[in-house]
Amino acid sequence: MTQPTRRQLANAIRFLAADAVETAKSGHPGMPMGMADIAEVLWNDYLRHNPSNPHWFNRDRFVLSNGHGSMLQYALLHLSGYDLPIEQLKLFRQLGSHTAGHPERHETPGVETTTGPLGQGFANAVGFALAEKLLAQRFNRPELEVVDHRTWVFMGDGCLMEGVSHEAASLAGTWGLHKLVCFWDNNHISIDGNVEGWFTDNTPERFEAYGWNVVRDVDGHDPESIKAGIEAALSQSDKPTLICCRTTIGFGSPNKAGKESSHGAPLGKDELEATRKQLGWEYGPFEIPQAIYDGWRANGAGTLRQAEWEQLFDKYARQYPGEAAELTRRSHGELPADFVAKADAYIAQVAAEGPTIASRKASQLAIEAYAPLLPEIVGGSADLAHSNLTLWKGSKSVASDDANANYVYYGVREFGMTAIANGLALHGGFIPFDATFLVFSDYARNGVRMSALIPAHAIHVYTHDSIGLGEDGPTHQPVEHLASLRYIPNNDVWRPCDAVESAVSWKAAITRQDGPSCLVFSRQNLPHQPRSAEQIAQIERGGYVLADAAGTPDVILIATGSEVSLATEAKAQLDAAGLKTRVVSMPSTDVFLRQDAAYRESVLPNAVRKRVAVEAGVTAFWRQFVGLDGAVVGIDTFGASAPADQLYKHFDITTAHVVEAAKAL
Amino acid sequence: MTQPTRRQLANAIRFLAADAVETAKSGHPGMPMGMADIAEVLWNDYLRHNPSNPHWFNRDRFVLSNGHGSMLQYALLHLSGYDLPIEQLKLFRQLGSHTAGHPERHETPGVETTTGPLGQGFANAVGFALAEKLLAQRFNRPELEVVDHRTWVFMGDGCLMEGVSHEAASLAGTWGLHKLVCFWDNNHISIDGNVEGWFTDNTPERFEAYGWNVVRDVDGHDPESIKAGIEAALSQSDKPTLICCRTTIGFGSPNKAGKESSHGAPLGKDELEATRKQLGWEYGPFEIPQAIYDGWRANGAGTLRQAEWEQLFDKYARQYPGEAAELTRRSHGELPADFVAKADAYIAQVAAEGPTIASRKASQLAIEAYAPLLPEIVGGSADLAHSNLTLWKGSKSVASDDANANYVYYGVREFGMTAIANGLALHGGFIPFDATFLVFSDYARNGVRMSALIPAHAIHVYTHDSIGLGEDGPTHQPVEHLASLRYIPNNDVWRPCDAVESAVSWKAAITRQDGPSCLVFSRQNLPHQPRSAEQIAQIERGGYVLADAAGTPDVILIATGSEVSLATEAKAQLDAAGLKTRVVSMPSTDVFLRQDAAYRESVLPNAVRKRVAVEAGVTAFWRQFVGLDGAVVGIDTFGASAPADQLYKHFDITTAHVVEAAKAL
Repeated sequence: MTQPTRRQLANAIRFLAADAVETAKSGHPGMPMGMADIAEVLWNDYLRHNPSNPHWFNRDRFVLSNGHGSMLQYALLHLSGYDLPIEQLKLFRQLGSHTAGHPERHETPGVETTTGPLGQGFANAVGFALAEKLLAQRFNRPELEVVDHRTWVFMGDGCLMEGVSHEAASLAGTWGLHKLVCFWDNNHISIDGNVEGWFTDNTPERFEAYGWNVVRDVDGHDPESIKAGIEAALSQSDKPTLICCRTTIGFGSPNKAGKESSHGAPLGKDELEATRKQLGWEYGPFEIPQAIYDGWRANGAGTLRQAEWEQLFDKYARQYPGEAAELTRRSHGELPADFVAKADAYIAQVAAEGPTIASRKASQLAIEAYAPLLPEIVGGSADLAHSNLTLWKGSKSVASDDANANYVYYGVREFGMTAIANGLALHGGFIPFDATFLVFSDYARNGVRMSALIPAHAIHVYTHDSIGLGEDGPTHQPVEHLASLRYIPNNDVWRPCDAVESAVSWKAAITRQDGPSCLVFSRQNLPHQPRSAEQIAQIERGGYVLADAAGTPDVILIATGSEVSLATEAKAQLDAAGLKTRVVSMPSTDVFLRQDAAYRESVLPNAVRKRVAVEAGVTAFWRQFVGLDGAVVGIDTFGASAPADQLYKHFDITTAHVVEAAKAL
Repeated sequence: MTQPTRRQLANAIRFLAADAVETAKSGHPGMPMGMADIAEVLWNDYLRHNPSNPHWFNRDRFVLSNGHGSMLQYALLHLSGYDLPIEQLKLFRQLGSHTAGHPERHETPGVETTTGPLGQGFANAVGFALAEKLLAQRFNRPELEVVDHRTWVFMGDGCLMEGVSHEAASLAGTWGLHKLVCFWDNNHISIDGNVEGWFTDNTPERFEAYGWNVVRDVDGHDPESIKAGIEAALSQSDKPTLICCRTTIGFGSPNKAGKESSHGAPLGKDELEATRKQLGWEYGPFEIPQAIYDGWRANGAGTLRQAEWEQLFDKYARQYPGEAAELTRRSHGELPADFVAKADAYIAQVAAEGPTIASRKASQLAIEAYAPLLPEIVGGSADLAHSNLTLWKGSKSVASDDANANYVYYGVREFGMTAIANGLALHGGFIPFDATFLVFSDYARNGVRMSALIPAHAIHVYTHDSIGLGEDGPTHQPVEHLASLRYIPNNDVWRPCDAVESAVSWKAAITRQDGPSCLVFSRQNLPHQPRSAEQIAQIERGGYVLADAAGTPDVILIATGSEVSLATEAKAQLDAAGLKTRVVSMPSTDVFLRQDAAYRESVLPNAVRKRVAVEAGVTAFWRQFVGLDGAVVGIDTFGASAPADQLYKHFDITTAHVVEAAKAL
């Protein structure tokens, strides 16, 4: 082979994908074969990245929202020179490989976000593009555009059918994210077959209705047509672009091209051979001629590109040393050196003041205290700013061009919000928080799961955390949500009992960098709980002895959030009745369960089995702490519409019930 | 007052709403005040219903998707003559009233579906309209259109921002549901203020892109403009209609109209008085002049309308007695008299055959067996028909005009699917099932919760239920989902261990009429478990002794689904080691926990505390069955991408681990 053609370069993707799926005996060859030509043009002619350094901050971001076509991305990473050797492609979908069934950020260098759950990669990408916009308007200076990169997205029909695509596209249009460029793989096929029976949207018109620039009728197998589409996107200055690419799924397969049979299963040995013939590919599985590699390799160009940027950045740093240091700190995900000390001082101050306020109000005060220390905070709410209490004095809408824009009015879009926040976190330079009512975490649930899986340092604020929200009634009253969120692996859920625990939970969420935290707050006022300095320090351990009896306790009451005060009141009555009672406040079961065995034993001695847990949520969750012989005061039905105090009585989540349950043990 | 004006009729709604919110000290006056004129025109001139019989089958369905404006609906129900006396309006949002904060179907006559979680009422309505279409094409005969009614929806900006509105609107357009008419309350206000900062969609163009008929620029306070919009909708024969109504939120309030301050809080005493003055409303709180009542009352007309329909139906019944009986049966939600017997015979047959197949395959065989008995079954999948195995021989797409259309290709729209299925169930005449991978129940989660809360007799089929799905990896592997779904109140989750339990779970889901069931199936093959007839009968109790030891057991193994065979293998080894071992199969913890104490004790004797639970999901859930001293074999991290058998070994969900755990107790 001499100088390979563009089609030959693209065919390298096709066969790496088809052969890897064949070897793994599972996977999705159709999409990589269909989008190979688009990918070839984008990666070889436009994508500004450095395969030798996947972490170069000013790289373009590439997101494969139709993540089932993971082999497309692995092939691209391998061919262009990322640290993903051919051996890894041979291990596609095998235990311990870096080539999982769907692209995983924590497994594979060059994968910007974990995709597969459809639509979310696209929404993540909106977050990437928003991050770029915000950093650019904060840090760039004339002639010194140190933040200047694009976000490129591949997406399929499935992504476009998902509701989250509506939420994210609408916001991207409103924000005018012109450096966001999406390629729609318009192949007319989804898993169930030709989409004409279930996907008849006029997608170009739909995106124009969102304020997007739409490039219609690109031939996704014609490099010139693809280039023209990209050029039309590059000329945009105030709109994101959707490039509609007509493609053939499984392109090159004589009998499966254009059919769903190429979508999610190996082509089969014979069909793969026939495809080799049809495309004139003379090489064996995983055999890539050097000329093809030469056509793809981007390490040299990438290293040069990064070096040029570093020169620019050095110049910037000489003129704006403060900004340069700040951008470096933020892009590295480092907190200001004094953050923890200042947070601790704030916590001590709250403890000294001891206010009795709703924990959502305590949350707002914590934001007010911490956000000025952390310009990387970008907050927001799904149209509940004044209920979630997520605005602070320094809030400035990201819909503005303000250099310090840091607040997102997400509208009523919980899932889009969460996935965009994940993108903000993954881009770097930001610690995002989002907010809604706890019950509507349901709408965002897979986004929360993705925060934990990717993982993304995102903070999810959920207020109105129980029947305590009162009159809005059962549609708005979470019952099962605390338990359900706690069960998501690598997700830290906090439900503070007062302003002090609220301040600590925010500190924990900010300092925890390897995953998300859910901060769950009350609508109603919660009394301050007095604590020693040692107890204050123990809050960060997730559970601790808030009030104790002398010697070994007879009974242990475990509580969270608004129910901690019920437990402390019950303790007084139980102590008076001669039962030595310990109260354990457990703002985060996730964090407590990570503590060492000795600490856990010191809080919940194994020998003390008379235990009562109290939380305004499903009771079965607490059996892991009270066992079969303990008791749980909670609620296992839906709530009701009434003032909060009446609901607590109606559902018998009361001090009297806790006392009675403890005495009955 | 003599003959009241239309505006005065509408003002009755405004003041009932504003006064009720004022009395309750909470609620949302702005929307009812803004949409009162639209509601007046619709209800007085177009809605075909019978307030004296909210269950009349051929009534128009009215859905308040922006359910926070619940007082609008309560005012309409009260004024038009439903069984909702003025005393109930005075008890708005109070414990035990029929006027909850958000409309609840099970609380209030005339409320077709429970709303409040935004966007879902609209999606339910798409289900209502689909149900009408399917019943009409199945049962109507020339000149005898016994099924002929419309679905009317009120929806706000919030509904339109939610992703589920995209999914549902897209399908409604594809299906051409021309009897669906939606009013967009275009008031430019959501909770955070003027929507221009976060909602800039061109909504008319967006809906035209879905294939809808869009009526632009209706003045929502001008009855003639509203009527013209409705007439344009009535003339449609192949498209659903969106009527875009420009309204003023809090219309009539001198200082709060057009502002978010009227949205979600009482107007306040002074402003309410000022509003009375501005609108010339001379009556006190909850005082409605008889002339106004006379203008609204629809009992007479409704009873007449129903009587006319009954005449028509009698004629139909004479000509088509079989169809009439069938429609009556289905509309009453009655199963065929012989269904249970035939289902039991099928279950016995499966037990006799004892196949070793994937439970998703067993599910398909059960559908194949039951669906021919139940023409009310309408199935579907979110683009995973061939993975969920939801197609059966009699499946016919609802996108066709086939009289027996019974299968929905939902596309990749899990949330819309679930909410539409809820609508199908609530309409009557159908038992819907929907399907996706278990992990993507996350996308639909609040829809599942609404199935349980409303409640709706919907069946949610979730396949690929664990790391057992293998190579697709952690994005597709549920870990926390079984536990999380079980915690939704009134939701029955089943995870069968073989084909027999699968057949029983389908029977249970079909016969359970007061709420949803989630049927959870494996991708991989599961060995048949032998059972006595008594054991087969006990499956319906949710948990039962599958294999026992003589006398009191030393150890009890509790398992579900694919892990039951691990437990039975472990039992053999433990028995051999001298430990008398009982195996409890627990396909539905929800159903088991509803059994009487004696039965539960017979399965899990309190005295036997050496217990090991095994399930490929989060372990903490099982502490309610094994206590602090038992053991759980499961998985508390995300999964991985690899062949299933390797994953089970990697995560140590193995017979050896169960044996070891039991011996260590």
